[in-house]
Amino acid sequence: MSYRVGIINITGYAGMEAARLLWRHPGARIVAATGRSLAGKRLSEAFPHLAVYGDFPITEELTEDVDIVFSALPTAESAKACLPFVNAGVKVIDIAADFRLREPGAFEQWMGGGNPHPAPDLLKEAVYGLPELNRDSIGAARLVANPGCYPAASVLALAPAVAAGLVGTQVVVDAKSGISGAGRGTGGSFGYSEVNEDVSAYKIGSHNHQPEIQQELGALREGPAPKVTFVPHLVPMTRGIHATCYAPLARDVSKGEVFEIYREFYKDAPFTKVSDVPPHTKHTMGTNMCLVHPAVDERNGMLVAVGVLDNLGKGAAGQAIENMNLMLGLEQSAGLDLPAVYP
Amino acid sequence: MSYRVGIINITGYAGMEAARLLWRHPGARIVAATGRSLAGKRLSEAFPHLAVYGDFPITEELTEDVDIVFSALPTAESAKACLPFVNAGVKVIDIAADFRLREPGAFEQWMGGGNPHPAPDLLKEAVYGLPELNRDSIGAARLVANPGCYPAASVLALAPAVAAGLVGTQVVVDAKSGISGAGRGTGGSFGYSEVNEDVSAYKIGSHNHQPEIQQELGALREGPAPKVTFVPHLVPMTRGIHATCYAPLARDVSKGEVFEIYREFYKDAPFTKVSDVPPHTKHTMGTNMCLVHPAVDERNGMLVAVGVLDNLGKGAAGQAIENMNLMLGLEQSAGLDLPAVYP
Amino acid sequence: MSYRVGIINITGYAGMEAARLLWRHPGARIVAATGRSLAGKRLSEAFPHLAVYGDFPITEELTEDVDIVFSALPTAESAKACLPFVNAGVKVIDIAADFRLREPGAFEQWMGGGNPHPAPDLLKEAVYGLPELNRDSIGAARLVANPGCYPAASVLALAPAVAAGLVGTQVVVDAKSGISGAGRGTGGSFGYSEVNEDVSAYKIGSHNHQPEIQQELGALREGPAPKVTFVPHLVPMTRGIHATCYAPLARDVSKGEVFEIYREFYKDAPFTKVSDVPPHTKHTMGTNMCLVHPAVDERNGMLVAVGVLDNLGKGAAGQAIENMNLMLGLEQSAGLDLPAVYP
Amino acid sequence: MSYRVGIINITGYAGMEAARLLWRHPGARIVAATGRSLAGKRLSEAFPHLAVYGDFPITEELTEDVDIVFSALPTAESAKACLPFVNAGVKVIDIAADFRLREPGAFEQWMGGGNPHPAPDLLKEAVYGLPELNRDSIGAARLVANPGCYPAASVLALAPAVAAGLVGTQVVVDAKSGISGAGRGTGGSFGYSEVNEDVSAYKIGSHNHQPEIQQELGALREGPAPKVTFVPHLVPMTRGIHATCYAPLARDVSKGEVFEIYREFYKDAPFTKVSDVPPHTKHTMGTNMCLVHPAVDERNGMLVAVGVLDNLGKGAAGQAIENMNLMLGLEQSAGLDLPAVYP
Repeated sequence: MSYRVGIINITGYAGMEAARLLWRHPGARIVAATGRSLAGKRLSEAFPHLAVYGDFPITEELTEDVDIVFSALPTAESAKACLPFVNAGVKVIDIAADFRLREPGAFEQWMGGGNPHPAPDLLKEAVYGLPELNRDSIGAARLVANPGCYPAASVLALAPAVAAGLVGTQVVVDAKSGISGAGRGTGGSFGYSEVNEDVSAYKIGSHNHQPEIQQELGALREGPAPKVTFVPHLVPMTRGIHATCYAPLARDVSKGEVFEIYREFYKDAPFTKVSDVPPHTKHTMGTNMCLVHPAVDERNGMLVAVGVLDNLGKGAAGQAIENMNLMLGLEQSAGLDLPAVYP
Repeated sequence: MSYRVGIINITGYAGMEAARLLWRHPGARIVAATGRSLAGKRLSEAFPHLAVYGDFPITEELTEDVDIVFSALPTAESAKACLPFVNAGVKVIDIAADFRLREPGAFEQWMGGGNPHPAPDLLKEAVYGLPELNRDSIGAARLVANPGCYPAASVLALAPAVAAGLVGTQVVVDAKSGISGAGRGTGGSFGYSEVNEDVSAYKIGSHNHQPEIQQELGALREGPAPKVTFVPHLVPMTRGIHATCYAPLARDVSKGEVFEIYREFYKDAPFTKVSDVPPHTKHTMGTNMCLVHPAVDERNGMLVAVGVLDNLGKGAAGQAIENMNLMLGLEQSAGLDLPAVYP
Repeated sequence: MSYRVGIINITGYAGMEAARLLWRHPGARIVAATGRSLAGKRLSEAFPHLAVYGDFPITEELTEDVDIVFSALPTAESAKACLPFVNAGVKVIDIAADFRLREPGAFEQWMGGGNPHPAPDLLKEAVYGLPELNRDSIGAARLVANPGCYPAASVLALAPAVAAGLVGTQVVVDAKSGISGAGRGTGGSFGYSEVNEDVSAYKIGSHNHQPEIQQELGALREGPAPKVTFVPHLVPMTRGIHATCYAPLARDVSKGEVFEIYREFYKDAPFTKVSDVPPHTKHTMGTNMCLVHPAVDERNGMLVAVGVLDNLGKGAAGQAIENMNLMLGLEQSAGLDLPAVYP
Repeated sequence: MSYRVGIINITGYAGMEAARLLWRHPGARIVAATGRSLAGKRLSEAFPHLAVYGDFPITEELTEDVDIVFSALPTAESAKACLPFVNAGVKVIDIAADFRLREPGAFEQWMGGGNPHPAPDLLKEAVYGLPELNRDSIGAARLVANPGCYPAASVLALAPAVAAGLVGTQVVVDAKSGISGAGRGTGGSFGYSEVNEDVSAYKIGSHNHQPEIQQELGALREGPAPKVTFVPHLVPMTRGIHATCYAPLARDVSKGEVFEIYREFYKDAPFTKVSDVPPHTKHTMGTNMCLVHPAVDERNGMLVAVGVLDNLGKGAAGQAIENMNLMLGLEQSAGLDLPAVYP
């Protein structure tokens, strides 16, 4: 018995990575996939690195009968494509940001370019797909909003501290991302010669992952959510997110106690591990793993919580497959128990 | 039933990659491993990226009873370490170069630094571990000499043409390698700031992979081996070999005919594929795949045969596992049917 | 008339960069240089990229009569080497950290490994060599402590805001550095294959640049220095520092007002420019330029001040030459008015 | 007295590099520049890294009275733009390939896409701008065809051997290039995530630099030109060309004799140096230098001649300025005597 998966927009990096990871999945397989630029080609022709994969044609629309759909369309295009499947009773995982912000109006403000959300009713129903926080509700959901790559790293880095009351009213998230986060087929400012040997910040205080992080941290405690200042940076590598999160400690706590809180929080999480030393993005390459490291700058009473992951793994396609496993009642780690590709 | 594997020097890149690839192997598992610098540590402590792996201690000497041994020691140190296992009836795969050159005296000249080979008798018995050429004898061997990363790419790129009599007396192999080929723990001239944004050639005409390529091409035809001029280059990437091989065509032949010869030659090879277009090293990343592309510069009657692979995959650890599969009577592709990690 | 410069340890990256930049300096030239590993070689032999430079031998000790000395020795080795020159009345610029922290005991605690400072009296006299803050006292100094690469970027990013009273009691500095900051000849963990495709934090809350930043920001205002949490990161590029500095705004202020404050503060600085958009490290490559960009996350009342520079330029050798110009009464920008090497 | 330079298409990488290098030129300055995408902006606004440069507006057409024009337009667009200036008596350096192939019909076949050359008469008059071969005729020319980046490296690597009769009928040029050779604003297949960690060959036997290399080598001797097989490769770095050239030796010659021939050939060349060891592209970064290294694979009677340079320096803009210096009667190295930016 093998579940039937459809992928909308397999030709982007997240879609391609989902295909790679599903290749040896014991309980699910791709049976249909769409892709605008490459519709009409066969998968192995479009992507030689997937030639080992059982081949099938890339189409304009999903044509096969499927049990679950991944949408890897760009944000603000995805919701519309998801709707018919949800309505038809097919489980849906939206890898885009369309169903992540629950507050009415947030879509319009942060990502819709002034246009209202195309399915506000579904917004309420969508479950935020971070199993470390919402394992059970993901299992019961018919629509899951897969977390953004930056929020996945940031929320996992901060969640135990917020839940334990260590974090006060203000949080800074300084995040560094590999370039594949910008997507495939992006030229111009993402050309090799432009971003190689360069670091730069962008969308300071205006990236739509800022309210996403704030919403999810807020859900972890009573009272108001901490205010989140989020600054994303591009660094010259292909894959990887490194989120460094800063929060003045709300109460006195020893380093050892902080580690204890983190270890306890993640003791049952198959894909989030607490690292004794500052982790390397490279140690998550090609996997669904998130490594977190809570440090304390004792001189200044500051929590420094680091989270690292592969933006296409736990930051996108790996996370989507973990969510799929939960939604379909499969083993949570099915198809995902891989060591990192290193060096 | 699962065969028991021992790895000598798991702490180098080839040893680590063998561990990564064996992780989900259906018929073999690592039960013991040595490593000089990290002896005494547990695997997961030494290499966080392998923490998903069933844990075991790294030791000074192989202590477990094993069915097969991989030696990933440096060249000229490996033969001595392999001997006791061969003598004890344990199958051995030497990832170093010690058993590759069959001619007496070649070891001394090219890699022994003037010292004679420590086991000349075994030299005759060792089988060159390239299954595309020697599948059956590998299956029957008790000692396999795993090919060098450059020769694997070069010989696979040229073999069909040499076997078909398209190649005359002279061959040029211009090869480009990622830096991981230089090994782990190498500092100084392999420091990031030295090799980043740089290309350079080294050991022009004096690398020990030159006689290795020549020996294996010579075995493919009657008469003398073609003379091989081999020039390796370092390029700023971690993994990947790109071998561009040039040979004046020995007879008139159309592009189509050349492709036909290549397709026929590799029609049963699970890990060498003929590509219609110049292949990318990236399309083999993390896999045991070799992509070859035979082009013809018709104006000049020159064959240009390209071979690309991952130097730690088909160029080292992946190839070793493929050889292990054949030696143990397992499926040739067991544990190796992975899509590339891309981008 | 041309001043005579001696360089202690020209064989490190900072020393080599000083040589490169002094090449076309109109008023100073290198006449002697030491270098441990390469003593006895001529400059052009040790460093082919400097072959265009007037050649001279690298020696064990400075032997020529010189007007000014740059010490590019490692921190905690430099002070001892500087002493004889200061005592002999030769002007000295210490590129290491030995004379930067003025508080007695700070050297011992942060960088001396428990050993006391070898010249505590000179500590009081040394001037912190950031001309944007201390132009006149640098001009009068006989010993200048050249700023660290991280502090140069961070202090320049924050100084106008601190001086204007916009910054309260707590500051976070999240800094990203290219690998050349780790120095030349560093192997192991700075090997290409280890740091390529990787981001990691290190020395969280324990790097000796933390008290350096705090000291210099404290000097900009009455009352206590802001507490500084400093986290350095390594990113896979050769040159460049990107410091992202976060400070809750101490009073209401508009974005426009902040820019006005910054522009006014740096209106006479030849090498620090206020950028309207988030700057790129690449835009400073090979130069003595620092680009700063003060952003405001208005939702959260947070100042986000970015500073970027070339760690070997304004972060080390370029800054040293700017200080030399001031100490010798030359034009402040002599030899340094170069466009960046881009792309 | 300062000559007035106009740049057509300053907004490409070659044009930008010319601006950078002309910044401190003692005898020439840019007074006007065109650029399609950025017309209307000022130079410092379009390119922050050139902000140190005396500012001027980028226009649609060259409006100032100029003494010399550089055209940095794409190949097959450039000739038309050069014509009016040549006709008006303004000296012109074409950095594109339009005037390089002297044989009637070659433009049409190799780069015109089937369209004939727009100014066949001027083709005969254009001088190939490699001063190591054509110093005097460049000085007298009114139209110079600036060499391609690959041919500059390859021809300089092979010229002494061809001129000395060491090279027979067949030559292989295997060339590796940084990505900036593909130009600015190129997206898609030159996006960072596509070319990072990748090597690939392209246009095997069909690149228009193949006939260019053949033509220039042919001009160095009596009798037919050697047949040239040329294969370009992309490697993941921004700047740099490494050409490895292979030629069976036409006569017995010792290594020492070959070096002697090379040293003698380039003894007066300010920008081509013979290196004793295989050179690094990094040692030419940001300069007009070409480093050549003639090795001999004695076992096989094969000359292996390496040439390295910065594709934007000696491979484009630096070369153009060297040509300008000769055309205007200035010192050949004016503005170009810079050490490389290293590391």
